[in-house]
Amino acid sequence: MSGVLHVVGLGPGDPDLMTVKAARLLREARCLAYFRKPGRAGQAWTIAHTLFPATSKQIVFEYPFTTEIELHDPRYLAQMGEFYEQCAGQLSEHLQAGHDVALLCEGDPFFYGSAMYLYDRLRYTHSTDVTPGVSGMSGCWSRAGAPITHGDDVLSIVPGTLPEAELVARLQSCDAAVIMKIGRNLTKIRMALTRAGVIRRAIYVERGTMQGEIILPFAELARDHAPYFALVLIPGRRGVR
Amino acid sequence: MSGVLHVVGLGPGDPDLMTVKAARLLREARCLAYFRKPGRAGQAWTIAHTLFPATSKQIVFEYPFTTEIELHDPRYLAQMGEFYEQCAGQLSEHLQAGHDVALLCEGDPFFYGSAMYLYDRLRYTHSTDVTPGVSGMSGCWSRAGAPITHGDDVLSIVPGTLPEAELVARLQSCDAAVIMKIGRNLTKIRMALTRAGVIRRAIYVERGTMQGEIILPFAELARDHAPYFALVLIPGRRGVR
Repeated sequence: MSGVLHVVGLGPGDPDLMTVKAARLLREARCLAYFRKPGRAGQAWTIAHTLFPATSKQIVFEYPFTTEIELHDPRYLAQMGEFYEQCAGQLSEHLQAGHDVALLCEGDPFFYGSAMYLYDRLRYTHSTDVTPGVSGMSGCWSRAGAPITHGDDVLSIVPGTLPEAELVARLQSCDAAVIMKIGRNLTKIRMALTRAGVIRRAIYVERGTMQGEIILPFAELARDHAPYFALVLIPGRRGVR
Repeated sequence: MSGVLHVVGLGPGDPDLMTVKAARLLREARCLAYFRKPGRAGQAWTIAHTLFPATSKQIVFEYPFTTEIELHDPRYLAQMGEFYEQCAGQLSEHLQAGHDVALLCEGDPFFYGSAMYLYDRLRYTHSTDVTPGVSGMSGCWSRAGAPITHGDDVLSIVPGTLPEAELVARLQSCDAAVIMKIGRNLTKIRMALTRAGVIRRAIYVERGTMQGEIILPFAELARDHAPYFALVLIPGRRGVR
């Protein structure tokens, strides 16, 4: 009997915003796996560690890069692909030995989550179960008191890694927007927000729902770079009334 | 001492996908409020009713329309505005009497939720606290086994109420998309998916995470209309490999 791969969304950061199902899966987990940057505790572990038993087996996947390689660099896809293959292989061994594994993922796993690269590789050969989570952006707009979409607003989710001209075009053609993956793209994003004429509506959120949370009008942000997991929110049309 | 307005996201439908915080707020609620269509139990009540005490006071807001009036009809905005004013007034009385109120909302409250229209009216005069929820779309793409965004995919959330030409343009200019508010727009949406060249990637989900759930390739859907809360998912670029 092969084990079940549980892909478990952990929500935006505050453990209280985990789902009831995710909390139960963690409390019962005998084997769990999560990603982290080398030398860091990792966001998934930080959210989840108070819940899972101290005796549970932990499989840790350390990302191969300590500094970001650009997404469009061909080395990125090649090296990440190899890394994910190795991770999937490791999980497969545990599953084939009959153990259930809880693969943890901050936010919602199927929304830009690393866990889905392992899910994609294992879904046809193993039993899987996916527990959605509150996304980081939902946590952020709730904390910011900023309803994001009303009526028939169109919402665009835009990675800050895109070229400036494309960011401008995207921001101009929607009613509401969320810019993800800020990091070293902050200066470019400021320019794009200005050129698109939306900088006054933009809200900057860092570590939303977590300790050290920062929420402020983007126009008041005096910095050149931000954490990768910061967000910019541009609420929809009624949000500005 | 004025009470606190708790805006509580209930998640996509399965009560197990409520957050730990939402479940606790419900169990402790002495006064709660929710919307429903006249003559229906309502989605919020259906998700939440097993958790809150039988003795808690329930404030029920019945939408003024039994059939949908088009969003762009000026009567819609006028009548809905008046309705929301009345609802907010009712909540305000309870809050001013010192009672906390849990205002329930299916999905994530700030993502097309009715609750935010009351929040918008009460936020500056009362203490508020917003609990985000797993969105309906997250519940749907998780159940469909369809990771929605990878890498630097742009995701567009598009209401199916938009004109066909705009739907086509939106679908052609993003990597991944979610079409909300299907209902009587199904035939128009089918045409837009076909014209945009994405119908083969489209997945139809009805009652995601709930009893009576239906998930199938959109191209296999043989119907003219669908429930308002059905969704169409178009996973991002890697989703098609």
